Amino acid sequence: MVLPLRLIPRLAAAARLPRAPRPISRRARLVPALAMAAAYSTGSGADRRLLFRQLFEKESSTYTYLLADVADPDKPAVLIDPVDRTVDRDLNLIKELGLKLVYAMNTHVHADHVTGTGLIKTKVPGVKSVISRASEAKADHFVDHGDKVHFGNLFLEVRATPGHTAGCVTYITGDADGQPSPRMAFTGDALIIRACGRTDFQGGSSDLLYQSVHSQIFTLPKDTLLYPAHDYKGFTVSTVEEEVAYNARLTKDKETFKTIMDNLNLPYPKMIDVAVPANLVCGIQDPPPKI
Amino acid sequence: MVLPLRLIPRLAAAARLPRAPRPISRRARLVPALAMAAAYSTGSGADRRLLFRQLFEKESSTYTYLLADVADPDKPAVLIDPVDRTVDRDLNLIKELGLKLVYAMNTHVHADHVTGTGLIKTKVPGVKSVISRASEAKADHFVDHGDKVHFGNLFLEVRATPGHTAGCVTYITGDADGQPSPRMAFTGDALIIRACGRTDFQGGSSDLLYQSVHSQIFTLPKDTLLYPAHDYKGFTVSTVEEEVAYNARLTKDKETFKTIMDNLNLPYPKMIDVAVPANLVCGIQDPPPKI
Repeated sequence: MVLPLRLIPRLAAAARLPRAPRPISRRARLVPALAMAAAYSTGSGADRRLLFRQLFEKESSTYTYLLADVADPDKPAVLIDPVDRTVDRDLNLIKELGLKLVYAMNTHVHADHVTGTGLIKTKVPGVKSVISRASEAKADHFVDHGDKVHFGNLFLEVRATPGHTAGCVTYITGDADGQPSPRMAFTGDALIIRACGRTDFQGGSSDLLYQSVHSQIFTLPKDTLLYPAHDYKGFTVSTVEEEVAYNARLTKDKETFKTIMDNLNLPYPKMIDVAVPANLVCGIQDPPPKI
Repeated sequence: MVLPLRLIPRLAAAARLPRAPRPISRRARLVPALAMAAAYSTGSGADRRLLFRQLFEKESSTYTYLLADVADPDKPAVLIDPVDRTVDRDLNLIKELGLKLVYAMNTHVHADHVTGTGLIKTKVPGVKSVISRASEAKADHFVDHGDKVHFGNLFLEVRATPGHTAGCVTYITGDADGQPSPRMAFTGDALIIRACGRTDFQGGSSDLLYQSVHSQIFTLPKDTLLYPAHDYKGFTVSTVEEEVAYNARLTKDKETFKTIMDNLNLPYPKMIDVAVPANLVCGIQDPPPKI
């Protein structure tokens, strides 16, 4: 099946290549669609094109994000950082909202939970997994800094934000007319509210993380909404302006930051030996071919 | 201290009485305010007047909501359903955002956690507690169906939605120019996502709850965002359209609903004997006078 959505590498986007005509999906719609497409928007974007949902997984305190272009007849959707334990919840919501899931994306190879991308692929044929090339994980599509991930007339910009892991990226809603305003950045573990991810495993580097956040996230417009992969205190969102002012670690100078990160004395991540090998292959191996 | 905000009873609002001039607060600002007031808006309301934050308390799975008018120089704010355990988190956030908390409100007398309103009052002089008159709880202000609770140029409309308890209300953002669009309804336990609160304690009535939700919530515009007091599955928001279509209980006819509610076989609420007596007096007794 030809998917109507594409990843446009940076050079093509820069050259403003005309978008290929959208193929009509010949697959019968598998899900019931409610009548009023715009009803689910939570407000970002004056035109209410964006449907946005934040979903929480309690055991690992992980946020999964659902974004869809509900002004597009297909209502194409992406999931960022789905968790294996909550895949059925997420897919049921997608079905109820009448969306068509096209990409299951990860900000990085997680060490604290198993990604839901592999499981989703077994349950919804046609969904493609997305992760950064630098992650060295298995996926259907690899993204690099500057790439754009399109779903309908919306897109996410990819920024490399290594430091928690060598392959971490931040996905940011587009900087263009018709894209959500204020912008929304899905920061993974590079930046969490008032804190950041640890830097002592998986190619982590406090030096690199500091540089990533200061150059790629703190330089976004002040009102950019920051949505992390985790929160442990019950916060759901922050802004660039808030983190620049109040982040307990990243507001320090680099040397102080590195000292803080070197002295966190965190326990060995209890899920890492299970989660990382699994997440390097989308959470599960591809399903065996049906014979 | 004269508070710049008022509760307008229904009749006064209907008669469109001119608003009293806002007194200038003589109290020095106790909290640092960030430069850009509009930066925190999460998007509802094209003018970005509304700052909105959803906050989660894990033990009781309670959502607390922070709303503020950041276009008003005082940045007046309200908290809906604060929890005692997370009061410090909430007040610190309010301080960081440079807001002035004026009302600590409850949708009802909770049985599963102790409200934070009493504790907030001891920590932030001048904050007034708000609850429905029908709750028979102690508070500084009592609201009835049709009242409006103003903070700056924004307001919440009060709708009586009894059934989980006899005194439950739903707070709904205003239906007027300059108010958030789509509207947002804070439903307490009357409606939770795909479900509803139990009806076997505290003057509960499945008959009344069914009537409340169908007459006061399901009649709101389809795109109204529904924010419950609790969620146990990691959902953060729903809409009227979604609940009308997919609520597992309230989409049934009334007799079926009543049968469902009569057969939930839920355990006795483990916190009820602590929480209800405490919540009837704002979580704690008023602080003793300083002699």
